[in-house]
Amino acid sequence: MQSAISDPRVVETTFPVRYAETDQMQVVHHASYVVWMEEGRSEFMRQCGADYAEIERAGHFLAVTSVQARDLAPAHYGERVTVRTWVDELRSRRLTFGYEIVNAETGALLVTGKSEHVCLDRQGRVTRIPELFRSALPPQR
Amino acid sequence: MQSAISDPRVVETTFPVRYAETDQMQVVHHASYVVWMEEGRSEFMRQCGADYAEIERAGHFLAVTSVQARDLAPAHYGERVTVRTWVDELRSRRLTFGYEIVNAETGALLVTGKSEHVCLDRQGRVTRIPELFRSALPPQR
Amino acid sequence: MQSAISDPRVVETTFPVRYAETDQMQVVHHASYVVWMEEGRSEFMRQCGADYAEIERAGHFLAVTSVQARDLAPAHYGERVTVRTWVDELRSRRLTFGYEIVNAETGALLVTGKSEHVCLDRQGRVTRIPELFRSALPPQR
Amino acid sequence: MQSAISDPRVVETTFPVRYAETDQMQVVHHASYVVWMEEGRSEFMRQCGADYAEIERAGHFLAVTSVQARDLAPAHYGERVTVRTWVDELRSRRLTFGYEIVNAETGALLVTGKSEHVCLDRQGRVTRIPELFRSALPPQR
Repeated sequence: MQSAISDPRVVETTFPVRYAETDQMQVVHHASYVVWMEEGRSEFMRQCGADYAEIERAGHFLAVTSVQARDLAPAHYGERVTVRTWVDELRSRRLTFGYEIVNAETGALLVTGKSEHVCLDRQGRVTRIPELFRSALPPQR
Repeated sequence: MQSAISDPRVVETTFPVRYAETDQMQVVHHASYVVWMEEGRSEFMRQCGADYAEIERAGHFLAVTSVQARDLAPAHYGERVTVRTWVDELRSRRLTFGYEIVNAETGALLVTGKSEHVCLDRQGRVTRIPELFRSALPPQR
Repeated sequence: MQSAISDPRVVETTFPVRYAETDQMQVVHHASYVVWMEEGRSEFMRQCGADYAEIERAGHFLAVTSVQARDLAPAHYGERVTVRTWVDELRSRRLTFGYEIVNAETGALLVTGKSEHVCLDRQGRVTRIPELFRSALPPQR
Repeated sequence: MQSAISDPRVVETTFPVRYAETDQMQVVHHASYVVWMEEGRSEFMRQCGADYAEIERAGHFLAVTSVQARDLAPAHYGERVTVRTWVDELRSRRLTFGYEIVNAETGALLVTGKSEHVCLDRQGRVTRIPELFRSALPPQR
Protein backbone atom coordinates (compact mmCIF):
# COMPACT_ATOMS: atom_id res chain seq x y z
CA MET A 1 0.00 0.00 0.00
CA GLN A 2 1.25 3.37 -1.08
CA SER A 3 1.95 5.85 1.70
CA ALA A 4 -0.88 8.31 2.24
CA ILE A 5 1.38 11.15 3.40
CA SER A 6 0.48 14.60 2.03
CA ASP A 7 -2.17 13.38 -0.37
CA PRO A 8 -4.99 15.95 -0.47
CA ARG A 9 -7.60 13.25 -0.78
CA VAL A 10 -6.57 11.78 2.56
CA VAL A 11 -8.30 13.01 5.72
CA GLU A 12 -6.48 12.75 9.05
CA THR A 13 -7.82 12.62 12.58
CA THR A 14 -5.69 12.39 15.72
CA PHE A 15 -6.62 11.30 19.26
CA PRO A 16 -5.03 9.78 22.36
CA VAL A 17 -5.08 6.02 22.94
CA ARG A 18 -7.64 5.22 25.66
CA TYR A 19 -6.65 3.07 28.64
CA ALA A 20 -9.73 0.90 28.09
CA GLU A 21 -8.39 0.09 24.61
CA THR A 22 -5.34 -1.75 25.97
CA ASP A 23 -5.30 -5.44 26.86
CA GLN A 24 -3.12 -7.54 29.13
CA MET A 25 -0.45 -7.83 26.40
CA GLN A 26 0.19 -4.13 27.34
CA VAL A 27 -0.77 -2.89 23.87
CA VAL A 28 -3.96 -1.75 22.15
CA HIS A 29 -6.35 -4.61 21.42
CA HIS A 30 -6.85 -5.12 17.67
CA ALA A 31 -10.65 -4.71 17.87
CA SER A 32 -9.97 -1.03 18.62
CA TYR A 33 -8.31 -0.64 15.21
CA VAL A 34 -11.68 -1.41 13.65
CA VAL A 35 -13.29 1.29 15.82
CA TRP A 36 -10.51 3.77 14.99
CA MET A 37 -10.93 3.11 11.26
CA GLU A 38 -14.63 3.87 11.63
CA GLU A 39 -13.71 7.05 13.49
CA GLY A 40 -11.40 7.96 10.55
CA ARG A 41 -14.31 7.32 8.17
CA SER A 42 -16.62 9.55 10.24
CA GLU A 43 -14.08 12.38 10.17
CA PHE A 44 -13.50 11.85 6.43
CA MET A 45 -17.21 12.29 5.80
CA ARG A 46 -17.56 15.31 8.08
CA GLN A 47 -14.69 17.03 6.26
CA CYS A 48 -16.26 16.19 2.87
CA GLY A 49 -19.45 17.93 3.96
CA ALA A 50 -21.30 14.62 3.97
CA ASP A 51 -21.68 14.10 7.73
CA TYR A 52 -22.70 10.49 8.16
CA ALA A 53 -25.12 11.37 10.97
CA GLU A 54 -27.06 13.48 8.44
CA ILE A 55 -26.81 10.79 5.76
CA GLU A 56 -28.51 8.33 8.13
CA ARG A 57 -31.21 10.88 8.96
CA ALA A 58 -31.82 11.12 5.18
CA GLY A 59 -32.46 7.37 5.13
CA HIS A 60 -29.16 6.02 3.77
CA PHE A 61 -27.21 3.44 5.79
CA LEU A 62 -23.62 2.61 4.92
CA ALA A 63 -23.35 -1.02 6.05
CA VAL A 64 -19.97 -2.72 6.43
CA THR A 65 -19.62 -5.80 4.22
CA SER A 66 -15.99 -6.53 5.05
CA VAL A 67 -13.17 -5.17 7.12
CA GLN A 68 -9.50 -6.04 7.40
CA ALA A 69 -6.56 -4.73 9.38
CA ARG A 70 -2.88 -5.60 9.19
CA ASP A 71 -1.03 -4.94 12.45
CA LEU A 72 2.54 -3.87 11.79
CA ALA A 73 3.50 -2.41 15.16
CA PRO A 74 1.69 -2.01 18.48
CA ALA A 75 0.03 1.16 19.82
CA HIS A 76 0.32 1.96 23.54
CA TYR A 77 -1.55 3.96 26.16
CA GLY A 78 0.20 7.32 26.52
CA GLU A 79 0.61 7.69 22.74
CA ARG A 80 -1.49 9.65 20.30
CA VAL A 81 -2.46 8.07 16.99
CA THR A 82 -3.43 9.54 13.63
CA VAL A 83 -5.89 7.73 11.37
CA ARG A 84 -5.51 8.56 7.66
CA THR A 85 -8.59 7.73 5.60
CA TRP A 86 -9.25 7.78 1.87
CA VAL A 87 -11.68 6.37 -0.68
CA ASP A 88 -9.99 3.38 -2.24
CA GLU A 89 -12.69 2.52 -4.76
CA LEU A 90 -16.11 3.91 -5.61
CA ARG A 91 -18.52 1.86 -7.72
CA SER A 92 -22.23 2.28 -8.28
CA ARG A 93 -23.16 -0.04 -5.42
CA ARG A 94 -19.94 -0.49 -3.47
CA LEU A 95 -17.57 1.84 -1.64
CA THR A 96 -14.15 0.91 -0.27
CA PHE A 97 -12.16 2.97 2.22
CA GLY A 98 -8.43 2.60 2.86
CA TYR A 99 -6.71 3.46 6.15
CA GLU A 100 -3.33 3.93 7.72
CA ILE A 101 -2.91 4.34 11.46
CA VAL A 102 0.35 5.95 12.53
CA ASN A 103 1.92 7.06 15.79
CA ALA A 104 1.14 10.80 15.79
CA GLU A 105 4.53 11.75 17.30
CA THR A 106 6.94 9.47 15.41
CA GLY A 107 4.93 8.85 12.24
CA ALA A 108 5.64 5.11 12.57
CA LEU A 109 3.11 3.07 10.61
CA LEU A 110 1.15 0.84 13.00
CA VAL A 111 -1.80 -0.52 11.03
CA THR A 112 -3.06 -0.60 7.46
CA GLY A 113 -6.69 -1.39 6.81
CA LYS A 114 -9.59 -1.50 4.42
CA SER A 115 -13.37 -1.59 4.73
CA GLU A 116 -16.03 -2.30 2.12
CA HIS A 117 -19.54 -0.93 2.30
CA VAL A 118 -22.89 -1.08 0.58
CA CYS A 119 -25.66 1.44 0.95
CA LEU A 120 -29.00 0.30 2.38
CA ASP A 121 -32.35 2.09 2.46
CA ARG A 122 -34.72 2.11 5.44
CA GLN A 123 -36.08 -1.30 4.36
CA GLY A 124 -32.57 -2.79 4.33
CA ARG A 125 -32.39 -3.06 0.52
CA VAL A 126 -29.08 -2.44 -1.23
CA THR A 127 -29.25 0.76 -3.28
CA ARG A 128 -26.83 2.75 -5.42
CA ILE A 129 -24.39 4.87 -3.42
CA PRO A 130 -26.56 8.02 -3.07
CA GLU A 131 -25.75 11.13 -5.09
CA LEU A 132 -25.74 13.16 -1.84
CA PHE A 133 -22.74 11.16 -0.78
CA ARG A 134 -21.09 10.54 -4.14
CA SER A 135 -20.90 14.22 -5.03
CA ALA A 136 -19.24 15.03 -1.70
CA LEU A 137 -16.37 12.59 -2.19
CA PRO A 138 -13.05 13.84 -3.47
CA PRO A 139 -11.74 12.31 -6.72
CA GLN A 140 -10.44 8.76 -6.19
CA ARG A 141 -6.76 8.03 -5.71
CA MET B 1 -25.38 -5.79 50.43
CA GLN B 2 -26.92 -9.07 51.47
CA SER B 3 -25.51 -12.15 49.76
CA ALA B 4 -27.62 -13.35 46.87
CA ILE B 5 -26.68 -17.01 47.30
CA SER B 6 -29.56 -19.47 46.92
CA ASP B 7 -32.29 -16.86 46.73
CA PRO B 8 -34.96 -18.07 44.27
CA ARG B 9 -35.53 -14.54 43.01
CA VAL B 10 -31.93 -14.29 41.84
CA VAL B 11 -31.05 -15.31 38.29
CA GLU B 12 -27.51 -16.44 37.49
CA THR B 13 -25.60 -16.45 34.23
CA THR B 14 -22.03 -17.70 33.80
CA PHE B 15 -19.51 -17.01 31.01
CA PRO B 16 -15.74 -16.88 30.44
CA VAL B 17 -13.85 -13.60 30.73
CA ARG B 18 -12.93 -12.37 27.23
CA TYR B 19 -9.35 -11.41 26.42
CA ALA B 20 -10.58 -8.12 24.93
CA GLU B 21 -12.07 -7.27 28.34
CA THR B 22 -8.65 -7.11 30.04
CA ASP B 23 -6.49 -3.99 30.19
CA GLN B 24 -2.79 -3.41 30.71
CA MET B 25 -3.22 -3.70 34.50
CA GLN B 26 -3.65 -7.44 33.64
CA VAL B 27 -7.22 -7.52 34.97
CA VAL B 28 -10.70 -6.94 33.55
CA HIS B 29 -11.40 -3.27 32.81
CA HIS B 30 -14.20 -1.90 35.00
CA ALA B 31 -16.32 -0.78 32.00
CA SER B 32 -16.87 -4.50 31.31
CA TYR B 33 -18.61 -4.87 34.67
CA VAL B 34 -21.31 -2.53 33.36
CA VAL B 35 -21.68 -4.72 30.26
CA TRP B 36 -21.76 -7.89 32.37
CA MET B 37 -24.45 -6.43 34.62
CA GLU B 38 -26.53 -5.69 31.52
CA GLU B 39 -25.94 -9.26 30.38
CA GLY B 40 -27.17 -10.44 33.80
CA ARG B 41 -30.27 -8.25 33.36
CA SER B 42 -30.91 -9.73 29.88
CA GLU B 43 -30.71 -13.25 31.26
CA PHE B 44 -32.92 -12.30 34.21
CA MET B 45 -35.60 -11.08 31.83
CA ARG B 46 -35.33 -14.09 29.51
CA GLN B 47 -35.78 -16.44 32.48
CA CYS B 48 -38.81 -14.43 33.69
CA GLY B 49 -40.43 -14.91 30.31
CA ALA B 50 -40.13 -11.20 29.56
CA ASP B 51 -37.35 -11.31 26.95
CA TYR B 52 -36.15 -7.72 26.61
CA ALA B 53 -35.76 -8.07 22.83
CA GLU B 54 -39.54 -8.71 22.67
CA ILE B 55 -40.30 -5.90 25.10
CA GLU B 56 -38.50 -3.46 22.78
CA ARG B 57 -40.40 -4.82 19.77
CA ALA B 58 -43.60 -4.10 21.73
CA GLY B 59 -42.47 -0.46 22.01
CA HIS B 60 -41.13 -0.30 25.58
CA PHE B 61 -37.54 0.83 26.18
CA LEU B 62 -35.87 0.31 29.53
CA ALA B 63 -33.45 3.24 29.68
CA VAL B 64 -30.62 3.34 32.24
CA THR B 65 -30.81 6.38 34.53
CA SER B 66 -27.93 5.41 36.79
CA VAL B 67 -25.40 2.67 37.26
CA GLN B 68 -22.83 1.93 39.93
CA ALA B 69 -20.28 -0.80 40.53
CA ARG B 70 -18.07 -1.46 43.53
CA ASP B 71 -14.92 -3.41 42.63
CA LEU B 72 -13.88 -5.68 45.47
CA ALA B 73 -11.46 -8.01 43.69
CA PRO B 74 -10.17 -8.27 40.11
CA ALA B 75 -11.38 -10.69 37.43
CA HIS B 76 -8.82 -12.25 35.06
CA TYR B 77 -8.74 -13.78 31.59
CA GLY B 78 -8.87 -17.56 32.01
CA GLU B 79 -11.54 -17.34 34.71
CA ARG B 80 -15.30 -17.78 34.40
CA VAL B 81 -17.59 -15.36 36.15
CA THR B 82 -21.19 -15.64 37.33
CA VAL B 83 -23.48 -12.62 37.37
CA ARG B 84 -26.33 -12.80 39.91
CA THR B 85 -29.19 -10.43 39.15
CA TRP B 86 -32.31 -9.51 41.09
CA VAL B 87 -34.94 -6.77 41.22
CA ASP B 88 -33.95 -4.49 44.06
CA GLU B 89 -36.94 -2.15 43.88
CA LEU B 90 -40.00 -1.85 41.66
CA ARG B 91 -42.03 1.34 41.65
CA SER B 92 -44.66 2.56 39.24
CA ARG B 93 -42.13 4.47 37.12
CA ARG B 94 -38.77 3.21 38.30
CA LEU B 95 -37.06 -0.18 38.40
CA THR B 96 -33.80 -0.98 40.18
CA PHE B 97 -31.71 -4.09 39.62
CA GLY B 98 -29.04 -5.36 42.01
CA TYR B 99 -26.03 -7.47 40.97
CA GLU B 100 -23.21 -9.53 42.34
CA ILE B 101 -20.40 -10.79 40.13
CA VAL B 102 -18.47 -13.74 41.52
CA ASN B 103 -15.67 -15.99 40.33
CA ALA B 104 -17.60 -19.03 39.05
CA GLU B 105 -15.01 -21.52 40.36
CA THR B 106 -14.16 -20.11 43.79
CA GLY B 107 -17.35 -18.12 44.50
CA ALA B 108 -15.21 -15.13 45.53
CA LEU B 109 -17.22 -11.90 45.35
CA LEU B 110 -15.64 -9.57 42.77
CA VAL B 111 -18.16 -6.81 42.14
CA THR B 112 -21.42 -5.53 43.57
CA GLY B 113 -23.60 -3.23 41.49
CA LYS B 114 -26.90 -1.53 40.95
CA SER B 115 -28.71 0.00 37.97
CA GLU B 116 -31.80 2.21 37.87
CA HIS B 117 -34.15 2.35 34.92
CA VAL B 118 -37.18 4.14 33.62
CA CYS B 119 -39.43 2.92 30.85
CA LEU B 120 -39.76 5.02 27.68
CA ASP B 121 -42.26 4.74 24.85
CA ARG B 122 -41.37 5.09 21.15
CA GLN B 123 -41.55 8.89 21.50
CA GLY B 124 -39.04 8.85 24.36
CA ARG B 125 -41.63 9.75 27.04
CA VAL B 126 -41.36 8.19 30.50
CA THR B 127 -44.23 5.78 31.09
CA ARG B 128 -45.27 3.44 33.89
CA ILE B 129 -43.32 0.17 33.98
CA PRO B 130 -45.52 -1.83 31.57
CA GLU B 131 -47.79 -4.57 32.89
CA LEU B 132 -46.22 -7.00 30.39
CA PHE B 133 -42.98 -6.61 32.27
CA ARG B 134 -44.31 -6.06 35.79
CA SER B 135 -46.32 -9.28 35.81
CA ALA B 136 -43.31 -11.31 34.70
CA LEU B 137 -41.12 -10.17 37.59
CA PRO B 138 -40.73 -12.38 40.62
CA PRO B 139 -41.75 -10.90 44.00
CA GLN B 140 -39.22 -8.36 45.26
CA ARG B 141 -36.57 -9.25 47.80
CA MET C 1 -23.59 18.40 42.22
CA GLN C 2 -22.29 21.90 41.79
CA SER C 3 -21.66 22.96 38.18
CA ALA C 4 -18.04 22.67 37.14
CA ILE C 5 -18.16 25.58 34.69
CA SER C 6 -15.16 27.92 34.78
CA ASP C 7 -13.55 26.34 37.82
CA PRO C 8 -9.76 26.42 37.34
CA ARG C 9 -9.36 23.04 39.04
CA VAL C 10 -11.54 21.38 36.40
CA VAL C 11 -9.89 19.95 33.28
CA GLU C 12 -11.94 19.60 30.09
CA THR C 13 -11.49 17.31 27.11
CA THR C 14 -13.74 17.26 24.05
CA PHE C 15 -14.19 14.57 21.38
CA PRO C 16 -16.80 13.32 18.91
CA VAL C 17 -19.16 10.48 19.84
CA ARG C 18 -18.07 7.30 18.04
CA TYR C 19 -20.59 5.29 16.02
CA ALA C 20 -19.46 2.11 17.80
CA GLU C 21 -20.51 3.73 21.09
CA THR C 22 -24.19 3.84 20.12
CA ASP C 23 -26.64 1.00 20.73
CA GLN C 24 -29.94 0.04 19.17
CA MET C 25 -31.79 2.54 21.38
CA GLN C 26 -30.14 5.11 19.01
CA VAL C 27 -28.13 6.70 21.82
CA VAL C 28 -24.72 6.18 23.40
CA HIS C 29 -24.54 3.02 25.53
CA HIS C 30 -23.95 3.82 29.19
CA ALA C 31 -20.78 1.67 29.40
CA SER C 32 -19.15 4.32 27.20
CA TYR C 33 -19.69 6.93 29.92
CA VAL C 34 -17.34 4.91 32.12
CA VAL C 35 -14.74 4.92 29.33
CA TRP C 36 -15.23 8.66 28.74
CA MET C 37 -14.80 9.40 32.44
CA GLU C 38 -11.50 7.48 32.33
CA GLU C 39 -10.52 9.51 29.29
CA GLY C 40 -11.32 12.68 31.28
CA ARG C 41 -9.13 11.39 34.12
CA SER C 42 -6.26 10.67 31.68
CA GLU C 43 -6.46 14.21 30.31
CA PHE C 44 -6.70 15.64 33.82
CA MET C 45 -3.48 13.90 34.78
CA ARG C 46 -1.66 14.87 31.56
CA GLN C 47 -2.56 18.53 32.16
CA CYS C 48 -1.36 18.31 35.79
CA GLY C 49 2.00 17.09 34.58
CA ALA C 50 1.39 13.67 36.10
CA ASP C 51 0.83 11.64 32.92
CA TYR C 52 -0.67 8.36 34.10
CA ALA C 53 1.35 6.37 31.53
CA GLU C 54 4.50 7.59 33.31
CA ILE C 55 3.02 6.96 36.74
CA GLU C 56 2.47 3.30 35.78
CA ARG C 57 6.02 3.05 34.42
CA ALA C 58 7.18 4.32 37.84
CA GLY C 59 5.35 1.35 39.42
CA HIS C 60 2.17 3.01 40.72
CA PHE C 61 -1.22 1.68 39.59
CA LEU C 62 -4.40 3.65 40.20
CA ALA C 63 -7.00 0.91 40.54
CA VAL C 64 -10.73 1.68 40.37
CA THR C 65 -12.59 0.66 43.53
CA SER C 66 -15.95 2.08 42.54
CA VAL C 67 -17.59 3.96 39.73
CA GLN C 68 -21.00 5.52 39.29
CA ALA C 69 -22.75 7.46 36.55
CA ARG C 70 -26.09 9.24 36.57
CA ASP C 71 -27.58 9.57 33.06
CA LEU C 72 -29.59 12.75 32.75
CA ALA C 73 -29.90 13.03 28.97
CA PRO C 74 -28.73 10.91 26.03
CA ALA C 75 -25.68 11.53 23.84
CA HIS C 76 -25.93 10.83 20.10
CA TYR C 77 -23.61 10.02 17.21
CA GLY C 78 -22.94 13.25 15.33
CA GLU C 79 -22.49 15.23 18.57
CA ARG C 80 -19.29 16.21 20.35
CA VAL C 81 -19.07 15.80 24.10
CA THR C 82 -16.92 17.51 26.72
CA VAL C 83 -15.83 15.64 29.84
CA ARG C 84 -15.08 17.87 32.85
CA THR C 85 -12.92 16.20 35.49
CA TRP C 86 -11.83 17.29 38.96
CA VAL C 87 -10.47 15.79 42.17
CA ASP C 88 -13.41 15.41 44.51
CA GLU C 89 -11.50 14.11 47.51
CA LEU C 90 -7.86 13.27 48.24
CA ARG C 91 -6.98 11.20 51.29
CA SER C 92 -3.79 9.42 52.18
CA ARG C 93 -4.90 6.13 50.58
CA ARG C 94 -7.94 7.06 48.53
CA LEU C 95 -8.59 9.42 45.63
CA THR C 96 -12.01 10.37 44.25
CA PHE C 97 -12.63 12.04 40.90
CA GLY C 98 -15.82 13.85 39.94
CA TYR C 99 -17.10 14.23 36.37
CA GLU C 100 -19.63 16.04 34.27
CA ILE C 101 -20.25 15.12 30.63
CA VAL C 102 -21.93 17.83 28.58
CA ASN C 103 -22.91 18.31 24.94
CA ALA C 104 -19.99 20.37 23.62
CA GLU C 105 -22.23 22.54 21.41
CA THR C 106 -25.22 23.21 23.65
CA GLY C 107 -23.61 22.75 27.07
CA ALA C 108 -26.51 20.53 28.11
CA LEU C 109 -25.56 18.33 31.05
CA LEU C 110 -25.76 14.65 30.02
CA VAL C 111 -24.04 12.67 32.74
CA THR C 112 -22.62 13.21 36.22
CA GLY C 113 -20.20 10.67 37.64
CA LYS C 114 -17.69 9.74 40.27
CA SER C 115 -14.87 7.20 40.55
CA GLU C 116 -12.89 6.08 43.58
CA HIS C 117 -9.34 4.78 43.39
CA VAL C 118 -6.62 3.28 45.50
CA CYS C 119 -2.96 3.14 44.55
CA LEU C 120 -1.30 -0.27 44.16
CA ASP C 121 2.38 -1.15 43.88
CA ARG C 122 3.80 -3.76 41.48
CA GLN C 123 2.90 -6.50 43.98
CA GLY C 124 -0.73 -5.36 44.08
CA ARG C 125 -0.49 -3.95 47.64
CA VAL C 126 -2.41 -0.80 48.53
CA THR C 127 0.00 2.08 49.18
CA ARG C 128 -0.33 5.76 50.03
CA ILE C 129 -1.20 7.95 47.03
CA PRO C 130 2.38 8.62 45.81
CA GLU C 131 3.96 12.03 46.34
CA LEU C 132 4.75 12.17 42.59
CA PHE C 133 1.03 12.23 41.98
CA ARG C 134 -0.15 14.14 45.06
CA SER C 135 2.11 17.12 44.39
CA ALA C 136 0.86 17.40 40.81
CA LEU C 137 -2.80 17.71 41.81
CA PRO C 138 -4.41 21.14 42.00
CA PRO C 139 -5.91 22.17 45.36
CA GLN C 140 -9.20 20.35 46.06
CA ARG C 141 -12.54 21.97 45.36
CA MET D 1 -14.52 -20.82 2.15
CA GLN D 2 -15.60 -24.39 2.73
CA SER D 3 -18.35 -24.91 5.28
CA ALA D 4 -17.06 -25.98 8.67
CA ILE D 5 -20.14 -28.03 9.54
CA SER D 6 -19.44 -31.35 11.30
CA ASP D 7 -15.68 -31.21 10.87
CA PRO D 8 -14.05 -32.72 13.97
CA ARG D 9 -11.23 -30.18 13.84
CA VAL D 10 -13.69 -27.33 14.27
CA VAL D 11 -14.50 -26.11 17.78
CA GLU D 12 -17.83 -24.38 18.45
CA THR D 13 -18.85 -21.95 21.16
CA THR D 14 -22.31 -20.41 21.53
CA PHE D 15 -23.41 -17.31 23.45
CA PRO D 16 -26.17 -14.67 23.39
CA VAL D 17 -25.64 -11.36 21.58
CA ARG D 18 -25.09 -8.61 24.16
CA TYR D 19 -27.15 -5.42 24.02
CA ALA D 20 -23.95 -3.36 24.28
CA GLU D 21 -22.76 -5.01 21.06
CA THR D 22 -25.53 -3.44 18.97
CA ASP D 23 -25.28 -0.04 17.32
CA GLN D 24 -27.86 2.45 16.10
CA MET D 25 -28.26 0.53 12.81
CA GLN D 26 -30.12 -1.99 15.10
CA VAL D 27 -27.59 -4.76 14.42
CA VAL D 28 -24.36 -5.96 15.99
CA HIS D 29 -21.43 -3.60 15.34
CA HIS D 30 -18.73 -5.25 13.23
CA ALA D 31 -15.98 -4.64 15.82
CA SER D 32 -17.76 -7.24 17.96
CA TYR D 33 -17.11 -9.87 15.29
CA VAL D 34 -13.40 -9.44 15.97
CA VAL D 35 -14.03 -9.96 19.69
CA TRP D 36 -16.23 -13.00 19.00
CA MET D 37 -13.57 -14.54 16.76
CA GLU D 38 -11.07 -14.11 19.61
CA GLU D 39 -13.58 -15.75 21.94
CA GLY D 40 -13.83 -18.64 19.44
CA ARG D 41 -10.03 -18.90 19.45
CA SER D 42 -9.96 -18.95 23.26
CA GLU D 43 -12.50 -21.78 23.35
CA PHE D 44 -10.61 -23.64 20.60
CA MET D 45 -7.45 -23.55 22.68
CA ARG D 46 -9.20 -24.53 25.91
CA GLN D 47 -10.73 -27.57 24.19
CA CYS D 48 -7.33 -28.53 22.73
CA GLY D 49 -5.88 -28.57 26.22
CA ALA D 50 -3.72 -25.56 25.43
CA ASP D 51 -5.55 -22.89 27.46
CA TYR D 52 -4.19 -19.58 26.23
CA ALA D 53 -4.18 -18.11 29.76
CA GLU D 54 -1.63 -20.82 30.68
CA ILE D 55 0.34 -20.31 27.48
CA GLU D 56 0.80 -16.63 28.41
CA ARG D 57 1.84 -17.57 31.93
CA ALA D 58 4.49 -19.82 30.32
CA GLY D 59 5.83 -16.74 28.49
CA HIS D 60 4.37 -17.19 25.00
CA PHE D 61 2.22 -14.42 23.50
CA LEU D 62 0.13 -15.03 20.41
CA ALA D 63 0.06 -11.58 18.80
CA VAL D 64 -2.41 -10.77 16.03
CA THR D 65 -0.72 -9.69 12.79
CA SER D 66 -3.86 -9.43 10.71
CA VAL D 67 -7.58 -9.92 10.98
CA GLN D 68 -10.41 -9.88 8.47
CA ALA D 69 -14.14 -10.40 8.60
CA ARG D 70 -16.70 -10.64 5.83
CA ASP D 71 -20.20 -9.67 6.94
CA LEU D 72 -22.82 -11.67 5.08
CA ALA D 73 -25.86 -11.08 7.27
CA PRO D 74 -26.51 -9.09 10.43
CA ALA D 75 -26.70 -10.45 14.00
CA HIS D 76 -29.30 -9.01 16.40
CA TYR D 77 -29.83 -8.65 20.12
CA GLY D 78 -32.12 -11.48 21.22
CA GLU D 79 -30.30 -14.03 19.07
CA ARG D 80 -27.63 -16.53 20.07
CA VAL D 81 -24.61 -16.98 17.85
CA THR D 82 -22.19 -19.87 17.38
CA VAL D 83 -18.55 -19.22 16.51
CA ARG D 84 -16.82 -22.08 14.67
CA THR D 85 -13.04 -21.96 14.85
CA TRP D 86 -10.32 -24.02 13.19
CA VAL D 87 -6.62 -23.84 12.36
CA ASP D 88 -6.38 -22.75 8.77
CA GLU D 89 -2.60 -22.94 8.43
CA LEU D 90 0.27 -23.77 10.79
CA ARG D 91 3.82 -22.85 9.85
CA SER D 92 6.94 -22.71 11.96
CA ARG D 93 6.48 -19.03 12.79
CA ARG D 94 2.93 -18.26 11.73
CA LEU D 95 -0.51 -19.54 12.69
CA THR D 96 -3.78 -18.76 10.90
CA PHE D 97 -7.23 -19.37 12.33
CA GLY D 98 -10.43 -19.51 10.26
CA TYR D 99 -13.89 -18.69 11.60
CA GLU D 100 -17.55 -18.88 10.75
CA ILE D 101 -20.18 -17.14 12.85
CA VAL D 102 -23.70 -18.50 12.45
CA ASN D 103 -27.09 -17.83 14.01
CA ALA D 104 -27.29 -20.61 16.62
CA GLU D 105 -31.00 -21.23 16.03
CA THR D 106 -31.28 -21.06 12.23
CA GLY D 107 -27.71 -21.95 11.28
CA ALA D 108 -27.64 -18.97 8.87
CA LEU D 109 -24.07 -17.95 8.08
CA LEU D 110 -23.48 -14.38 9.31
CA VAL D 111 -19.72 -13.81 9.16
CA THR D 112 -16.62 -15.52 7.82
CA GLY D 113 -13.22 -14.49 9.15
CA LYS D 114 -9.54 -15.17 9.46
CA SER D 115 -6.78 -14.08 11.83
CA GLU D 116 -3.02 -14.44 11.50
CA HIS D 117 -0.70 -14.66 14.48
CA VAL D 118 2.95 -14.81 15.39
CA CYS D 119 4.32 -15.96 18.71
CA LEU D 120 6.32 -13.51 20.83
CA ASP D 121 8.49 -14.16 23.87
CA ARG D 122 8.55 -11.93 26.97
CA GLN D 123 10.99 -9.57 25.21
CA GLY D 124 8.61 -9.17 22.26
CA ARG D 125 10.78 -11.19 19.85
CA VAL D 126 9.12 -13.42 17.27
CA THR D 127 9.76 -17.09 18.07
CA ARG D 128 8.71 -20.42 16.56
CA ILE D 129 5.15 -21.48 17.47
CA PRO D 130 5.97 -23.26 20.77
CA GLU D 131 5.86 -27.06 20.94
CA LEU D 132 3.49 -26.78 23.94
CA PHE D 133 0.97 -25.23 21.62
CA ARG D 134 1.82 -27.05 18.39
CA SER D 135 1.38 -30.51 19.89
CA ALA D 136 -2.05 -29.58 21.24
CA LEU D 137 -3.45 -28.59 17.87
CA PRO D 138 -5.55 -31.03 15.90
CA PRO D 139 -4.30 -31.98 12.40
CA GLN D 140 -4.83 -29.15 9.90
CA ARG D 141 -7.82 -29.11 7.59
